[in-house]
Amino acid sequence: MKILITNDDGIKADGIKKLAKTFAESGNLVSVVAPERERSAAGHAITVHKPLRVSQVDSEGISYYAVSGTPADCVKLALEKLIEKPDIVISGINRGANLGTDVLYSGTVSAAIEAALNGLPAIAVSIVSCQYPTYEAASALTLKLAKIYLEKGLPKGTLLNVNVPNQPANEIKGIKISKLGERKYINNFEKRTDPRGRVYYWMAGEVDDSNPEQGTDVWAVVNQFVSVTPIHFDLTNHYFLSELSKWEL
Amino acid sequence: MKILITNDDGIKADGIKKLAKTFAESGNLVSVVAPERERSAAGHAITVHKPLRVSQVDSEGISYYAVSGTPADCVKLALEKLIEKPDIVISGINRGANLGTDVLYSGTVSAAIEAALNGLPAIAVSIVSCQYPTYEAASALTLKLAKIYLEKGLPKGTLLNVNVPNQPANEIKGIKISKLGERKYINNFEKRTDPRGRVYYWMAGEVDDSNPEQGTDVWAVVNQFVSVTPIHFDLTNHYFLSELSKWEL
Repeated sequence: MKILITNDDGIKADGIKKLAKTFAESGNLVSVVAPERERSAAGHAITVHKPLRVSQVDSEGISYYAVSGTPADCVKLALEKLIEKPDIVISGINRGANLGTDVLYSGTVSAAIEAALNGLPAIAVSIVSCQYPTYEAASALTLKLAKIYLEKGLPKGTLLNVNVPNQPANEIKGIKISKLGERKYINNFEKRTDPRGRVYYWMAGEVDDSNPEQGTDVWAVVNQFVSVTPIHFDLTNHYFLSELSKWEL
Repeated sequence: MKILITNDDGIKADGIKKLAKTFAESGNLVSVVAPERERSAAGHAITVHKPLRVSQVDSEGISYYAVSGTPADCVKLALEKLIEKPDIVISGINRGANLGTDVLYSGTVSAAIEAALNGLPAIAVSIVSCQYPTYEAASALTLKLAKIYLEKGLPKGTLLNVNVPNQPANEIKGIKISKLGERKYINNFEKRTDPRGRVYYWMAGEVDDSNPEQGTDVWAVVNQFVSVTPIHFDLTNHYFLSELSKWEL
């Protein structure tokens, strides 16, 4: 397989290196095109008002391209200017979960969506914990998933969002096919005063996963399952189209 | 009505001022919380790695808060720290269309989605042309829409994306309820060389709207209709959940 790997933690992150090595070692042609620095929470931002720079290094048979942009920029630029058309695009392994409504903020998931927008198979993969993440189980699982995905195919515009508990493979209880859940945060902002007496706000927030709905990705990972969610990028609420047509506008 | 207005063109943009005045003049309590500078194509990015600053000015009965963050930051911060809970959040009027798959990149639409995530009614509104945009027809229509919206209500997690042709109201052919279309770009990146001989890439791209699918927002505005699309933020591909469950993972 020809694989494009990207992320939002930046090209030096352990998760992307582990993923790239796992795919390369199993005989795939791997190109890594990723942000030169961390771009977490970049959402689907793209860079239109300034130029993008690229620097390339080859290491252990893998081409690494560091891009001065967002995850979505990386995928766009890779596909149009940097590499041959890949068979599949993998985004990750992200340090930290990308679950439920949080996928909207996720650079990791947005990069995979950008690939799907370009008609390519895509997987976003994240480790649920930010603390002491281990990438072995997740990278092995992603390799397996990519093979099955390319064998079976997914509907147009559909991709996979995968979240893996931060545990050795033999402690993970299994895999659940899940829908996206809801992630609620409390105390999003801390109001502080700087050394010169001026107010600033810093986004913080504690997530409340105490009572996740069964069948959701949040429920799956809280219960030590891998969550696999088929996602798409069609934001039209088709169910409401005909109802809205009856409004007298 | 209590109205929160935001945008991604920045707090000094003509579109947001016109919208704020239109709502204020018709007796509504208007707060504007918007990025201090243009944040087009910010998608649903949020600012987690640095603090946010806010500066406030009151003018003609309207409170203006300029925030050093993205459109989604503005909505989050407004709702948690800056203003009373509004009845509806309006994002715009954006200078330039937000149609089809492009809504994923749109700071304007993402701000409205952030409001819907917080359980509030929301409308994103854009003028289709970037050149010599006129905001009269769009602001009058948005005021009318907001009233009808609050009267009738929308399903949970659903909001409206509105695109208005850049014409006087009497030249607009009517309103079409549309689904999101596809927006295809050609030649996304220009490869250039800087004065020191180093390569850079600049995102450009020409949109190809030559053959839009009927029933889409792209079709509506190409044919001089206002497009109104009900959108949601549930990225789960529900149709594919059961099929995916049959895969042996």
